[in-house]
Amino acid sequence: MAEYRTLTAAELAAEKERLETAYRHIQQQGLKLDMSRGKPSPEQLDLSMGMLDVLTSSDILACETGADVRNYGLLEGIPEARHMFADLMEVDADEVFVGGNSSLNLMYDTVARNMQFGAAPGETPWGRQGTIKFLCPVPGYDRHFGVTETFGIEMISIPMSPTGPDMDLVEQYVNHDPAVKGIWCVPKYSNPDGYTYSDETVRRFAALKPAARDFRIFWDNAYCVHDITDTPDTLLNLMDECKKLGSEDMVYIFSSTSKISFSGAGVAAMAMSRRNLAWAKKFLTMQTISFDKINQLRHTLFFRNKEGIRAHMEKHRALIKPRFDLVLGMLDREIAGLGIAEWTRPNGGYFFSLNVLPGCAKRVVALCREAGVVLTGAGASFPYGVDPQDSNIRIAPTYPSLQDLEKAAEVLCLCVRLAAVEKLLSQANAA
Amino acid sequence: MAEYRTLTAAELAAEKERLETAYRHIQQQGLKLDMSRGKPSPEQLDLSMGMLDVLTSSDILACETGADVRNYGLLEGIPEARHMFADLMEVDADEVFVGGNSSLNLMYDTVARNMQFGAAPGETPWGRQGTIKFLCPVPGYDRHFGVTETFGIEMISIPMSPTGPDMDLVEQYVNHDPAVKGIWCVPKYSNPDGYTYSDETVRRFAALKPAARDFRIFWDNAYCVHDITDTPDTLLNLMDECKKLGSEDMVYIFSSTSKISFSGAGVAAMAMSRRNLAWAKKFLTMQTISFDKINQLRHTLFFRNKEGIRAHMEKHRALIKPRFDLVLGMLDREIAGLGIAEWTRPNGGYFFSLNVLPGCAKRVVALCREAGVVLTGAGASFPYGVDPQDSNIRIAPTYPSLQDLEKAAEVLCLCVRLAAVEKLLSQANAA
Repeated sequence: MAEYRTLTAAELAAEKERLETAYRHIQQQGLKLDMSRGKPSPEQLDLSMGMLDVLTSSDILACETGADVRNYGLLEGIPEARHMFADLMEVDADEVFVGGNSSLNLMYDTVARNMQFGAAPGETPWGRQGTIKFLCPVPGYDRHFGVTETFGIEMISIPMSPTGPDMDLVEQYVNHDPAVKGIWCVPKYSNPDGYTYSDETVRRFAALKPAARDFRIFWDNAYCVHDITDTPDTLLNLMDECKKLGSEDMVYIFSSTSKISFSGAGVAAMAMSRRNLAWAKKFLTMQTISFDKINQLRHTLFFRNKEGIRAHMEKHRALIKPRFDLVLGMLDREIAGLGIAEWTRPNGGYFFSLNVLPGCAKRVVALCREAGVVLTGAGASFPYGVDPQDSNIRIAPTYPSLQDLEKAAEVLCLCVRLAAVEKLLSQANAA
Repeated sequence: MAEYRTLTAAELAAEKERLETAYRHIQQQGLKLDMSRGKPSPEQLDLSMGMLDVLTSSDILACETGADVRNYGLLEGIPEARHMFADLMEVDADEVFVGGNSSLNLMYDTVARNMQFGAAPGETPWGRQGTIKFLCPVPGYDRHFGVTETFGIEMISIPMSPTGPDMDLVEQYVNHDPAVKGIWCVPKYSNPDGYTYSDETVRRFAALKPAARDFRIFWDNAYCVHDITDTPDTLLNLMDECKKLGSEDMVYIFSSTSKISFSGAGVAAMAMSRRNLAWAKKFLTMQTISFDKINQLRHTLFFRNKEGIRAHMEKHRALIKPRFDLVLGMLDREIAGLGIAEWTRPNGGYFFSLNVLPGCAKRVVALCREAGVVLTGAGASFPYGVDPQDSNIRIAPTYPSLQDLEKAAEVLCLCVRLAAVEKLLSQANAA
């Protein structure tokens, strides 16, 4: 079919009628499909079931120093877990703090700590500095934006490109506005675009000269080993680049096994300079006695090391890649050439971005929902839930079965076309 | 031996010399014993090893609603865990939030939430009301006081008695001072006295008419099923009493399995009115996606219900009671009758209080430490770490083996006597 824009009003009307008939037909099928969240599929979770067998009642539950992991103690995590995450996050083991099951919780706590107590000894708490601001590369991760919104932090959108956030803008804000205290980054396979920051972008991050001494980069490396193609992206090591310039206190790095082992029962970690970690631990030691070290031991026994994790991720890839391929292939066949949408094609991660005609994202999501297919809410990937273009839709293809996903992708393509033809027809009629 | 106070200076000097000789002898043994924290012994932790076998790779990891506990979701915990804690905490299941492994973390988060966002919709955050205050029954739990001190909350000591905190004082503060926002309570087998609040005390708590609408009782029921004698204490249900009077929004209840299953890898929960829980969840949903539900399922499968927990606690009792008996028996034999110390004799919990001659607690702890026996720091059970009498020592007899404990108790008794004789002798010499 020709590009929609080249169609006459009559041709658009005919196409609309055809699509509406197909839509009504699909509505009658009573579908109940979910592509809304970046959830691993049950088959992915099955990959880690062996972890339930590595510790039994006949095992001795000691970490490598001999400490009993069942009891209190070891606030910063068992040594072998700190080492495993150090390898994964490419930092030193004594820069790693291993927490509970949620890296989001570590990020929330880090924002909360800085709001309440300040980012470093002697710094005024963020919460007592009037209006403070975070930079938010967009589209980005809705839960990041949820944290900053909850704390009343003003959010400034920074456009993303395939090489990362617009660094001219980032430098302009960070280096000149002392109210800018942070930036949210998913540097590898970004949520939702699936972009990986270029080496130059990482170097420019390390070289920032913040107007605020208490500015911090929240580097959420959630997808560090989550490749899905034969040409995986590589991410330059931000901590190393910072150390070359003496700017390592500017960085908090987060990671977890939520999309490696169990999304509800994994292990999360954060890494930061020894100075930052000493400051954080001053409060963490008041917050809890220790996190779940048995689960930490379970993870290190099951994965052993980074190589073990890499081998495990190959199995995830075998389940995830066909799902990405299916939805991307359907878009290629059904939508490409119509001039009504563009999409990213990541080498890893959990999402890709589908950008429909401006003003159509909400309509597509609504049409899908009414046909039984739940997508991430339009606008969710933007601060305050508002996509100024109403164009971006986050596609999360990992959770449904291939059979369900095929159906969901069909519905998606149909709704993208229908929303586009509705818009173009109303423009044609108004002209 | 006669009461020390009745001895002449010469008799005291002779006793001192005898004790010092014994002390030097013990110092040469190079002991390394720890009675400092309320840690379960390895044998206690062994009681729950079966929990590691209830979920294996061949099991289906679904909760009672069929939801996959391995994946994201169910922020407030799996239904069966909410039910189990509801039974344990004597509240309704929909008043329960099941969290991670640490009830201290739930308490810290609750204080942090109220500091940052206020205790209820429309209330000014605690952190923006100038100086606010917490009442602290003393002696009390050092980690409670650590949380309030960290947040800069002024702490007011309230004397404890065998029936609970001095309720006249509590009412005077709570009902008249709007800056008083909270009180820390360990209502059953209090840390460190082992006292249980009387029915009248609980009723007076429920009947408080706080000057501050955002006043909250932090009811840390850590030892709700931790009986160690045939005459266990019973605690009136505060939530029920509050509901009779419509004051249920005043109460946060906390509990955990840290001293039921694994202290480092248990499950913690909090209970509060539906209104309070809805407010808390508004922020918890920003903080994390969900806590570790596999560990929640492990616990409910292993314990089944409150009766299962009660049966399990009998096994703990069999290990704990001899330890309490040993130390208390040693004190009875070595110290009673000398008029130099008093101690509590709880029906449960993890601690008892040893109150030595005023001005002697720090000395006893130092003497013990120098003889290789670590006690909780003197003053730890008081706000800001200062016991105005320098008299209270928290005794935690659960962790050491009986053999080690006998040695440690010997050292303790010797040091209590030595510190007393030092003091009395210096008084006699000064007279």
